[in-house]
Amino acid sequence: MISVGIVGAAGYSGVELIKLLLNHPEVEIAKLFGNSTAGNSIEEIHPSLKGMISLKVEQFNPKELEDIDLLFVAMPSGQSMQVVKEALSANVKVIDIGGDFRLKNVEEYKRYYNHEHTETELLSSTVYGLSEWNEEAISIAKLVANPGCYPTSILLALLPLLKENLIESKNIGITSYSGTSGAGKSVAANMIFSEVNESVRAYKVGDHQHIPEIKQYLEYFSGVETNFSFVPHLLPVTRGIYTTIYTLLKNDVTEAKIMNAFKHNYSSAPFIRFIGTEIPEMKNVVNTNFCDIGFRIYENGTLVLFSTIDNLVKGAAGQAIQNMNIVFGFQQTEGLLRCSKKQSLQIK
Amino acid sequence: MISVGIVGAAGYSGVELIKLLLNHPEVEIAKLFGNSTAGNSIEEIHPSLKGMISLKVEQFNPKELEDIDLLFVAMPSGQSMQVVKEALSANVKVIDIGGDFRLKNVEEYKRYYNHEHTETELLSSTVYGLSEWNEEAISIAKLVANPGCYPTSILLALLPLLKENLIESKNIGITSYSGTSGAGKSVAANMIFSEVNESVRAYKVGDHQHIPEIKQYLEYFSGVETNFSFVPHLLPVTRGIYTTIYTLLKNDVTEAKIMNAFKHNYSSAPFIRFIGTEIPEMKNVVNTNFCDIGFRIYENGTLVLFSTIDNLVKGAAGQAIQNMNIVFGFQQTEGLLRCSKKQSLQIK
Amino acid sequence: MISVGIVGAAGYSGVELIKLLLNHPEVEIAKLFGNSTAGNSIEEIHPSLKGMISLKVEQFNPKELEDIDLLFVAMPSGQSMQVVKEALSANVKVIDIGGDFRLKNVEEYKRYYNHEHTETELLSSTVYGLSEWNEEAISIAKLVANPGCYPTSILLALLPLLKENLIESKNIGITSYSGTSGAGKSVAANMIFSEVNESVRAYKVGDHQHIPEIKQYLEYFSGVETNFSFVPHLLPVTRGIYTTIYTLLKNDVTEAKIMNAFKHNYSSAPFIRFIGTEIPEMKNVVNTNFCDIGFRIYENGTLVLFSTIDNLVKGAAGQAIQNMNIVFGFQQTEGLLRCSKKQSLQIK
Amino acid sequence: MISVGIVGAAGYSGVELIKLLLNHPEVEIAKLFGNSTAGNSIEEIHPSLKGMISLKVEQFNPKELEDIDLLFVAMPSGQSMQVVKEALSANVKVIDIGGDFRLKNVEEYKRYYNHEHTETELLSSTVYGLSEWNEEAISIAKLVANPGCYPTSILLALLPLLKENLIESKNIGITSYSGTSGAGKSVAANMIFSEVNESVRAYKVGDHQHIPEIKQYLEYFSGVETNFSFVPHLLPVTRGIYTTIYTLLKNDVTEAKIMNAFKHNYSSAPFIRFIGTEIPEMKNVVNTNFCDIGFRIYENGTLVLFSTIDNLVKGAAGQAIQNMNIVFGFQQTEGLLRCSKKQSLQIK
Repeated sequence: MISVGIVGAAGYSGVELIKLLLNHPEVEIAKLFGNSTAGNSIEEIHPSLKGMISLKVEQFNPKELEDIDLLFVAMPSGQSMQVVKEALSANVKVIDIGGDFRLKNVEEYKRYYNHEHTETELLSSTVYGLSEWNEEAISIAKLVANPGCYPTSILLALLPLLKENLIESKNIGITSYSGTSGAGKSVAANMIFSEVNESVRAYKVGDHQHIPEIKQYLEYFSGVETNFSFVPHLLPVTRGIYTTIYTLLKNDVTEAKIMNAFKHNYSSAPFIRFIGTEIPEMKNVVNTNFCDIGFRIYENGTLVLFSTIDNLVKGAAGQAIQNMNIVFGFQQTEGLLRCSKKQSLQIK
Repeated sequence: MISVGIVGAAGYSGVELIKLLLNHPEVEIAKLFGNSTAGNSIEEIHPSLKGMISLKVEQFNPKELEDIDLLFVAMPSGQSMQVVKEALSANVKVIDIGGDFRLKNVEEYKRYYNHEHTETELLSSTVYGLSEWNEEAISIAKLVANPGCYPTSILLALLPLLKENLIESKNIGITSYSGTSGAGKSVAANMIFSEVNESVRAYKVGDHQHIPEIKQYLEYFSGVETNFSFVPHLLPVTRGIYTTIYTLLKNDVTEAKIMNAFKHNYSSAPFIRFIGTEIPEMKNVVNTNFCDIGFRIYENGTLVLFSTIDNLVKGAAGQAIQNMNIVFGFQQTEGLLRCSKKQSLQIK
Repeated sequence: MISVGIVGAAGYSGVELIKLLLNHPEVEIAKLFGNSTAGNSIEEIHPSLKGMISLKVEQFNPKELEDIDLLFVAMPSGQSMQVVKEALSANVKVIDIGGDFRLKNVEEYKRYYNHEHTETELLSSTVYGLSEWNEEAISIAKLVANPGCYPTSILLALLPLLKENLIESKNIGITSYSGTSGAGKSVAANMIFSEVNESVRAYKVGDHQHIPEIKQYLEYFSGVETNFSFVPHLLPVTRGIYTTIYTLLKNDVTEAKIMNAFKHNYSSAPFIRFIGTEIPEMKNVVNTNFCDIGFRIYENGTLVLFSTIDNLVKGAAGQAIQNMNIVFGFQQTEGLLRCSKKQSLQIK
Repeated sequence: MISVGIVGAAGYSGVELIKLLLNHPEVEIAKLFGNSTAGNSIEEIHPSLKGMISLKVEQFNPKELEDIDLLFVAMPSGQSMQVVKEALSANVKVIDIGGDFRLKNVEEYKRYYNHEHTETELLSSTVYGLSEWNEEAISIAKLVANPGCYPTSILLALLPLLKENLIESKNIGITSYSGTSGAGKSVAANMIFSEVNESVRAYKVGDHQHIPEIKQYLEYFSGVETNFSFVPHLLPVTRGIYTTIYTLLKNDVTEAKIMNAFKHNYSSAPFIRFIGTEIPEMKNVVNTNFCDIGFRIYENGTLVLFSTIDNLVKGAAGQAIQNMNIVFGFQQTEGLLRCSKKQSLQIK
């Protein structure tokens, strides 16, 4: 049994963490931290939690971390750097769900996040928490940078093919559609219901902060240089990301090779549901930690990839717990997935 | 550990049962039955279950119930009578999620369900599974008739006040709004997305099959004769019921009396979240077994009650599991709710 | 041909007015006024208007009203009083879409709108713009107070029955559900998409500012004292109001009497579609100026009324134009409805 | 004034045609035809039309076309061929909104539509009704094949750039998202609200019947050979298509050249709103005949195009009326768009 704290408990990722962790047999939620919400009970802030947990939200203070084994940090960019540093100094392991520790290049950080990185000395030892591709490093990490929601859906789909050299790495067109919870609880004129409902719009075209994250880790895990465009869109649903990727097959690459690349790269990945040439549907992954991946080859040699996740689960809180499981030696699925017995045997 | 079967596994209630039961530490799903889907694996029928359970759906056959402790029946009205009878004959306990065993009066059954009841001899021993009001009877029942979704939201809100004689029992106006999953997977022209989206409509006004169920159990549990109108509406959301009830306070009834009526009737009901004069919000109960109840008194003596549940959980599969827990002596919340330790102590 | 101005052109009602008026053969939009948006072209503020109208939004100034025949005022409560006064002083007719001139009782105004009324001397000559019930007064009005959206849907359904003494006037339970555009473009934490979507909540229970408006005009037009509760709810759709009303029939009142009451009161009302015992559906009125009304009588003597409108059209901009048509002697349907020739003959 | 008939009046495109045509000053709707709905008044079938038009729907019979100037045909693929032939024989002009006359190659027709073309002799004289690119031919056509919804959004965005040789024509990745009304009123298990809501799925990947239509007319109007993939997705909204296109700029092509290509190709196209490097939003075109087009150039030379229309208006009934206007010499915007006077002058 471990004891965890959450900074940013009142945001969407924070609440999702709480709900998932309450279901985890090896975890006790000991501390909740927040800024504007400090002083209130979490169940007053989020009536959906009433009857489940009544902890008070406190202002973050590293002195309060004494009995904490792990701190989840779910704060807006720029606000987590100081908190993470103080937690590490207090010898507490950290999983940062925000974007502050994902980019190795501080100039890119500044360009895409619009402020300076103030804790650059931590970057070299940070481990990127893409669970399926970095398990070994995560298992010994002190600071895990949990992947962004879009990058998770994109990296999981493209990496097997890039790594095995099956597609043209410099001619990739990525479109992603995300539910509104990806934007957090921030209150903006263009996020009110009347503006989002029955509509779709692309946004942050060419300057979304996930662009350098996608590029860095596509290349880090595959060893291949890439060139792509990424176009995020806002969808009138609360949860879920749907990614469609246009690529070109390399010569002589067959459907069977594509199948194999996914199958052996994800043979022991309980949350990747590779469904071959079937087409994923977003609702099948909402409220789960699954990533469903499918593909289709066109007559003209185009390979289209489909990938879908719940942005708040596999794209945030769920993958954070999966990483926690790896860090503390629990089964990866603990608290995230219970299968029928028969099924469990298959997963090991 | 008990072993259960589900008849009607491929419907919305069936799938919800599967997902909830996979998370129940004391239950193994041993058998899935269905008609049109028989012969296929449940994960082919419902890709959302892929990686969790791969049981084959079979045609129902009472011989297959040998090792089964409990059978959940989730079939359209008229189809469960025979199945229930055969299961009981095979000495298997049954929780019927459909409407076939809720009404004691077979003429009313015929009038509202439009066909004859063929197993009337079972009706007298059937126990109505409104968990919070019938726990003792449920605990020794062989056949539990799980309440309808609308009745659950309505009975839980009105019963404390009727029982304690605080409102006029013959002047009650009930409006309920339900998500589309309440209509099941039936394919009808007026249920396609383009017809339901961005709209609202009342339906089955005056002849909804839940009217006699509401009346029978309002009166059975409160001992008071009632007169009410019930108006169901279709809402463009997938899950959830929101009920608003117009009533008149009896003379000299104060807010405090209303508060007390709820508090002591539900003092040991972990799934009833009575929130006093706060207003419930549907999204707080979606995907949970909670029923959130609030009220407001108007200057003119009107008392308005609000009640909201997830129609597939507390209104179907969740309450069925709650009843299973009662039947088998598990904690009522088992598999349905995990609280933080502190909270658990409060619930006992 | 008349020339009109709009104050509050950038709000939802303002934009709806613009779109409808562009389609009106007898009107030219000459001036657009606004506060925060002043200085910008309306098509920059609302790209949906691009290619249709490129007028600049200006700060309101009564000197700019010289060539204006009519001013529509669509501003938040409290902001329109001064503007209306100045326009009337400049001898311009006004239709105020906001709530500032609807209540005759200034204490009620203060209680429900939370600020003082500063132009009380205008109240006595203000005409309430419920087109179907006040045509004569509207036709000679200088200041029309356009009805609120909820009151429109409620008054149109109840008035024929109250006036003809067919229902108990002191035992009325009204529930209404509204789309989010009714809340305007105001940016609030509980109005962002993630908070509204897939949910429902009642709000302003017992203190909604439309309560005194409903009571005042129910009684004014019917001559009967009333007692009712009104419960507004927020619906996850952009447009539309759906009202369901619980009433009790007076002794010996038959279905035929109800039918007749609607038929003769609305025999020459082109925008009232009384559909008898059929059930209205919200999507049939969205984007139109229609109000669809139906009813059902229960065995126990309950009469349930259904009424649905588009809150931005019949509940705001559309009814304002209908009133403008009455004021200037155009056909009531001008710019709002074009029928096939045959149909037109029926309407006269 | 012309007199028109509509075959398939009860489908979504048929109803949209009726609503738009009622607003057209030069058109009278004289006849409505349908199959399953024949014998009923259109306002019984579609209560939204009540009070506007009460024509009876009849079985199609060419003898009924005597006083008809133009027949709109809005039927499922395969059903319109015979009707179109008979109408042309009766000397009535036809605009076919379905897909039966769009493809010149009958083998492709058979492959993508899964049945034989039975009226191949009509194909050579059929004119493709992409209004902005084929005005001259449309103006003298007897049979106009109205474009598909997806092709309209795609062709309008790509043609200026292909024609002016600004992008690589053989490396194009198209993703489109469509509302559910694009699927018509067909009742299928995967189109009910519970299955579509809060989800997204790609469908007909690689075999959508619009693929050959897109290819044929991209190449016909631009004179350039193309190679592309097209991926349609289903969106949980009722109306609207949002298309995002991945392309590569040719060497030395600047943003200015892209701007110019759109500007001069669409200088006299009132329904094309080219918004440069701004990003279109679907809700701005819903319920209009506009197509909003924008673009962005990435640092790596990728050009991303955005295009959005209302699938039932510019993608079906609206463009059909625009074509009718061209055929009969009315102004293109007649019945589809009314601008402020100032604006009208700009459009000519």
